Amino acid sequence: MLAIAGYQLGIEFRFFDPHSGAPVGQIGELVAAEYTDHEALARFLNDVDVVTYEFESIPLSAVEFVAERVRVYPPLKALQIAQDRLLEKKLFEGLGIPTPPFAPVDSLQELVQGVSRIGLPLVEGFVPFQHELSVLGVRDAKGCEVFYPPVQNVHQDGILRKSTAPAPNVSPEVSALAIDYCRRLMTELDYVGVLALELFSVDGALVANEMAPRVHNSGHWTIEGAETSQFENHLRAVLGWPLGTTALRGTSVMFNIIGHIPSREAVLAVEGAHLHLYGKAPTEKRKVGHVTLVGASPEDLGRATIELERLVARSVTGS
Amino acid sequence: MLAIAGYQLGIEFRFFDPHSGAPVGQIGELVAAEYTDHEALARFLNDVDVVTYEFESIPLSAVEFVAERVRVYPPLKALQIAQDRLLEKKLFEGLGIPTPPFAPVDSLQELVQGVSRIGLPLVEGFVPFQHELSVLGVRDAKGCEVFYPPVQNVHQDGILRKSTAPAPNVSPEVSALAIDYCRRLMTELDYVGVLALELFSVDGALVANEMAPRVHNSGHWTIEGAETSQFENHLRAVLGWPLGTTALRGTSVMFNIIGHIPSREAVLAVEGAHLHLYGKAPTEKRKVGHVTLVGASPEDLGRATIELERLVARSVTGS
Repeated sequence: MLAIAGYQLGIEFRFFDPHSGAPVGQIGELVAAEYTDHEALARFLNDVDVVTYEFESIPLSAVEFVAERVRVYPPLKALQIAQDRLLEKKLFEGLGIPTPPFAPVDSLQELVQGVSRIGLPLVEGFVPFQHELSVLGVRDAKGCEVFYPPVQNVHQDGILRKSTAPAPNVSPEVSALAIDYCRRLMTELDYVGVLALELFSVDGALVANEMAPRVHNSGHWTIEGAETSQFENHLRAVLGWPLGTTALRGTSVMFNIIGHIPSREAVLAVEGAHLHLYGKAPTEKRKVGHVTLVGASPEDLGRATIELERLVARSVTGS
Repeated sequence: MLAIAGYQLGIEFRFFDPHSGAPVGQIGELVAAEYTDHEALARFLNDVDVVTYEFESIPLSAVEFVAERVRVYPPLKALQIAQDRLLEKKLFEGLGIPTPPFAPVDSLQELVQGVSRIGLPLVEGFVPFQHELSVLGVRDAKGCEVFYPPVQNVHQDGILRKSTAPAPNVSPEVSALAIDYCRRLMTELDYVGVLALELFSVDGALVANEMAPRVHNSGHWTIEGAETSQFENHLRAVLGWPLGTTALRGTSVMFNIIGHIPSREAVLAVEGAHLHLYGKAPTEKRKVGHVTLVGASPEDLGRATIELERLVARSVTGS
């Protein structure tokens, strides 16, 4: 989706992925090699102006290798912190962003101490949240920043199923607070690109869950639902181009397609349904696409939402 | 732009172009060969389900070769007629679609007769039009059809400079008439895909100029300005998938970028400007990109329009 947004802007791309069959190979030049293969990484970097990444499980050593040779955004520090739940929580704490109670556990003794302080069932405290929210910010190297309004997310079995933008039932104050937390993180990290911050809403207060230094699944609705998509804005930020307006085109609902590809004809027959398939073979729990609806209001989307939920639910059970 | 729209739908593409350096080679598999190279055409067709084309100067013999092997849309007949101004005008006449006066000229004698009937300066009669309009229809093999509202176009030196959608100063009756003309053509041709019909508006009447059996420059605004773009709808039609709604997101203005690439930063700094660059090297009079603005109303776009016209005008003079 980054490449598709970038092609429209006249940007040329090269991709790096450990899997030679990665879907991106269908739409551009793919260097397929292990992250530890420095020769391949060097080949990948040939004539490249700037590098970005779109998932945070990439080995830090590979990004370090790249960063010594070519500009890499988001900054290495953000990736390093996002890969370590403890560093991440300490960063949140340091910036006055509430977190669930947590305890570092490196030994049996620390485990016992942690449980006695936080309680069961979890060593990272369980948060009885009302809503899961996320907020996406975009920042460039000069410190310009824009924000998409907070989104309400529904997870199931730990996988994002649905995002609604803007988040309903969230007051302007809570919305502003979420954006403020995201801004604090971006400023502290001297951040460049899209940063996603996931939050729990608990009785009008916000508790930070985690951050993701990349374009984010809960921002896929921006392709049709905002004047500038998260993908285009990430590229603009990374390239030092002016950021685009995040103005909304209405209310958006995005459904993930997981584990099965529903009938394209059935989805496209739903008025206003914007289908996105990623060219991935469907396996259980694998996100293989998403569908977005945009309407003047949530009520506007009612019937189409019900139809799509039915089509996408079939894709979850694989039936 | 067809491929970019198609990638989002999970469609795989292969491209054919006589130029090995064609920009599309950056975003997918390109077979570069002459249109007369049947061996290359056969290689191109390997495992392909359906073929479409996006300009009407393609040699008919190449499309015939393809059509004997794989489904090709828009239909051969539409291409054949669009390549012959006389056949085209006769088709318009036969369907009751007004045309400028015209005369077939194959000899000096016919030229003299033609001039005496039509008058100078042109053997195809000069139309003192008030507006240039175009209307784009989409039709699938089952006869389902949707239409974008007529657009007002501004040409200069025979090149499209600007399209405004919906066309201002056009009554609902004239708008409906334009759509009706387009419908007559699509029905007669048993058409599949996007068909563009260019018209002159003369004192509230419409005179057909020409048709184009393909996605059309005057429909580029649909990428951001309509719920479903002409590119996605062309693909849906060609693949037999349900057509998408053509509902508008507001008023759109599209400017072509011709002969020079303006500063990307300057264009992107205009609020709401959607930049599209085609990866083409700029040469005089070559269309290398376009910019679209979408707003709630034409007044809404006033300031941004003036800024963009200045930036794009610089690209025309090459200064």
